[in-house]
Amino acid sequence: MKVDGTQYRSIWFDHDANDVKIIDQRWLPHEFKIVALESLEEFAVAIQEMWVRGAPLIGATAAYGMAMQMARDPNDRSIDETWSYLEKTRPTAINLRWALNRCRDALCKIPPESRAEAALNLAHEIADEDVETNRRIGLNGLEIIKKIAAGKTAGDPVRLLTHCNAGWLATVDWGTATSPMYHAQESGIPLHVWVDETRPRNQGALTSWELGSHGISHKYIVDNAGGHLMQHGLVDAVIVGTDRTTASGDVCNKIGTYLKALAAHDNGVPFYVALPSSTIDWTVHNGVDEIPIEERNEDEVTHIMGKTDNGSVANIQVSPDGTPGGNPAFDVTPRRLVTGLITERGVCEASAEALARMFPENAN
Amino acid sequence: MKVDGTQYRSIWFDHDANDVKIIDQRWLPHEFKIVALESLEEFAVAIQEMWVRGAPLIGATAAYGMAMQMARDPNDRSIDETWSYLEKTRPTAINLRWALNRCRDALCKIPPESRAEAALNLAHEIADEDVETNRRIGLNGLEIIKKIAAGKTAGDPVRLLTHCNAGWLATVDWGTATSPMYHAQESGIPLHVWVDETRPRNQGALTSWELGSHGISHKYIVDNAGGHLMQHGLVDAVIVGTDRTTASGDVCNKIGTYLKALAAHDNGVPFYVALPSSTIDWTVHNGVDEIPIEERNEDEVTHIMGKTDNGSVANIQVSPDGTPGGNPAFDVTPRRLVTGLITERGVCEASAEALARMFPENAN
Repeated sequence: MKVDGTQYRSIWFDHDANDVKIIDQRWLPHEFKIVALESLEEFAVAIQEMWVRGAPLIGATAAYGMAMQMARDPNDRSIDETWSYLEKTRPTAINLRWALNRCRDALCKIPPESRAEAALNLAHEIADEDVETNRRIGLNGLEIIKKIAAGKTAGDPVRLLTHCNAGWLATVDWGTATSPMYHAQESGIPLHVWVDETRPRNQGALTSWELGSHGISHKYIVDNAGGHLMQHGLVDAVIVGTDRTTASGDVCNKIGTYLKALAAHDNGVPFYVALPSSTIDWTVHNGVDEIPIEERNEDEVTHIMGKTDNGSVANIQVSPDGTPGGNPAFDVTPRRLVTGLITERGVCEASAEALARMFPENAN
Repeated sequence: MKVDGTQYRSIWFDHDANDVKIIDQRWLPHEFKIVALESLEEFAVAIQEMWVRGAPLIGATAAYGMAMQMARDPNDRSIDETWSYLEKTRPTAINLRWALNRCRDALCKIPPESRAEAALNLAHEIADEDVETNRRIGLNGLEIIKKIAAGKTAGDPVRLLTHCNAGWLATVDWGTATSPMYHAQESGIPLHVWVDETRPRNQGALTSWELGSHGISHKYIVDNAGGHLMQHGLVDAVIVGTDRTTASGDVCNKIGTYLKALAAHDNGVPFYVALPSSTIDWTVHNGVDEIPIEERNEDEVTHIMGKTDNGSVANIQVSPDGTPGGNPAFDVTPRRLVTGLITERGVCEASAEALARMFPENAN
């Protein structure tokens, strides 16, 4: 999408420099920095330290990492080592493994001398597919927003709430949860988006930055506020993304998603999850019991980043000296709280049966 | 309670200086500052700008403010003007009006020349009563914690979750939600407290500071984390405070309390609210419909305070330039989600009938 009038993707191959460029998202929304990734270590750090984040973008980044490594060493062992090295950078992200498996499966079938070019083409293909997938998610989600708008007085905005950043910065372009919003905006439907701050890491600031850059009306709220807003009829629907969806429709997403789903359910507000089918883990059926939740560094909780009065970006400590922080990074929203899954093929209910009907080729 | 080994209350009259001392809580947990309040304007600013916060402490502060003003001007009109001036500083805080009404009702019955001394004695009385009330809340809550501990293997901690700061800093001493914790600690029951950060304003940092100062095991978590912890059996009970309780048992407390109550209910975790009966508004029956929710300055949401690397306290901007913030400061937890109310008289269910039985003199 656009930044200051220029069209960007969140990751791209720079043919002139022969490296991969990403937006280093650690400095957003305060500074817009583009960095180059070349070595495998740089790709691993970029994923692990969340220079890039969001399931689809992590997958594309891993694919480009594999491609860069194939240009250096296209042997069988290199494929396996690269797979292992990148796979352990974010254990909860299913797209990471999906992209790496796809690269490994394709590359090991072709001779080493063809692997560098093939791997780069595959990374491009994964990136382009993500853009197309998200465009379709947006068109399918647009139908939901259109129906809500049809029930309103003309001119009254459709009020959506979202958590975390399932925006174009979390994908290659369009975003997942935001794609219906961008499509609605382009269709002329008045919108207002409540953006959860999404502690820790405040990815809501990224979503606000995205929406603001695109001219979509929004407000930045603390993660505590959504329940109250829903209680008072100020939210027409919730749309969030997901890092991993079970074959049965449970949704693993950024910590706090479950709380918003509970509030939506308690107040009769529809709760939608936008996802590319690549985030479905067909081997997992009970999300709460089976999905390991990453416990991240406590510094993310005890500290917070922002812009000081003089415009510099600073990381400050919000908790008292000596207080330990707990940092489970994700939670699981059980399918009973999910109104519908917005996929690239259409909207379906969050159930094993509906998902199997939508994706018969993957269901067991 | 203690700070660096010295016993403090959160507000006290300084006989030598003939002024009122408070802990200026805006700088906690990073700096411990004591300031003097003398003029009525200073008292109003201290309440409005949250140098003091928490329903009981706000009430005591207002009473001391009335006392200081009576020393300057004890006439009838001064009583009414002081009442009006202080009452509008925090519209949602029921204790503020309760304390001011109590002062006005007592003072208008006695001759002006006796009012200064009487008002000061009344402020002391309100402060002392709060301490005693909170001690009793603690003893009643202790029984709940004892029962939970009795069901555990000896040595396993009782794991509590709390939201905001209903600690001694929010009262004159002991706190409300924390009083059972301090009593449990003194009874030798092993405890671990999950402390919600509680954006905006991060009052969880105050709770962490309190608990740390007292040697109670705790972890600082983001407001998003509690649902996940409850889903995984890591919370034995939730205990929060309240700014206002309806005659029917609905609970108005810091924004986000409702979300934790939903999660507790969804996971069979008991959800208790600790409150002095002074926070019960006997005129209100439906909390969600009737209680006006204060919309505070958006800067509280778009900015956050903390300690920089060099030890100074800074306020940094977390949202992007130009993004507006929404800041509803409280929400209402419907009584159906509340397991019990811990009052100074005992623990009762959250219902009009139970509250009327517990406080027959107030019920209509």
